[in-house]
Amino acid sequence: MKGKFITFEGGEGVGKTTQLAMMKKYLNDNNINSVFLREPGGNAISEKIRAIILDRENSEMTGMCEALLYSAARAQLVEAVIRPALEEGKLVVCDRFTDSTFAYQGIARGLGGEKIDILNKLACNDITPDLTIFLDLPPKEAFKRKGGADKDDRLEQEGMEFHIKVYEGYKEALKLYKDRIIDMDCSEDAETIHKNIVEIMKQRGIL
Amino acid sequence: MKGKFITFEGGEGVGKTTQLAMMKKYLNDNNINSVFLREPGGNAISEKIRAIILDRENSEMTGMCEALLYSAARAQLVEAVIRPALEEGKLVVCDRFTDSTFAYQGIARGLGGEKIDILNKLACNDITPDLTIFLDLPPKEAFKRKGGADKDDRLEQEGMEFHIKVYEGYKEALKLYKDRIIDMDCSEDAETIHKNIVEIMKQRGIL
Repeated sequence: MKGKFITFEGGEGVGKTTQLAMMKKYLNDNNINSVFLREPGGNAISEKIRAIILDRENSEMTGMCEALLYSAARAQLVEAVIRPALEEGKLVVCDRFTDSTFAYQGIARGLGGEKIDILNKLACNDITPDLTIFLDLPPKEAFKRKGGADKDDRLEQEGMEFHIKVYEGYKEALKLYKDRIIDMDCSEDAETIHKNIVEIMKQRGIL
Repeated sequence: MKGKFITFEGGEGVGKTTQLAMMKKYLNDNNINSVFLREPGGNAISEKIRAIILDRENSEMTGMCEALLYSAARAQLVEAVIRPALEEGKLVVCDRFTDSTFAYQGIARGLGGEKIDILNKLACNDITPDLTIFLDLPPKEAFKRKGGADKDDRLEQEGMEFHIKVYEGYKEALKLYKDRIIDMDCSEDAETIHKNIVEIMKQRGIL
């Protein structure tokens, strides 16, 4: 593949949206040809799947159904968007990817990391991120910063216990995939975090 | 499990709808407590997933995305409907199940039977049909009987070559799961086929 693929991960309220916006500006300012995507979504079919996952009406959804829907949206995104962009030499930046399913469904929902690893491999075929930035901020601090959960989002409506499990799930993914995932301390201000991310991308030959 | 679980399988136009209607009447006439389901679907969440799978707008859908969507709908159906019904001692009759994904996505779409077997196991957990009736009619004869494909259904709009591969996929499933799947000759009239199915269900201790 000529292009590079990086993903941003983290729980609710850690500042992922802010960091992605700063990264987008940086890449534009430096004339780097990039594609920004969000998961689940990033193409027409996956956005329809996203609508089912996030609809509060579907509160009876089982953990495995949810994990399979995320994987379906991912399989489509990989073949329809990510692979062609990488073949064209673009830098692909994705807001959430396989590690979200590992942390949320695998660990927090208790399906088990092994099952999610199998699903992730089926969905991605041979596409793996070159680098993953885990925005590390404990959930209690993150929700304080964010000012509470979004009422319209089924997943954000989960209790604090759930979000703590998600955080632990990410820590487990960090141990399993320590070469790929960077543990980025997010207790500092947004500008400092952004500079640290750019620095690591340079070190890894992505910029 | 106190209840029993049987599934009906087969390509387009083999007379599955007719056989299911005859089975429903038979069970009602004999006061057998049964639940009839269709796949993908059978509950609110799975019906929403069904709408995405069958929408002709989504013609760019990859085989793996399709397989994962079927599996998601199945995971929900199993936990929300099938398992509780079996625990209550009901006879669950499902129009299509895991063997459809094996034949359509695994073989006809070329994803490979092994990958689909993995997905089927993840989606079903420990629930397996006690008996599967494969309505066996070669695709050319089936489409002649049916009077052509349904214009509004994305899967039926596939060419004859695809439906022949589906048929071969079912034949492969028959070899792999010969204890569970019955190869039911459908060249005879509907009433004879129905009687043969009832006979087999009696032999297997389902009726």
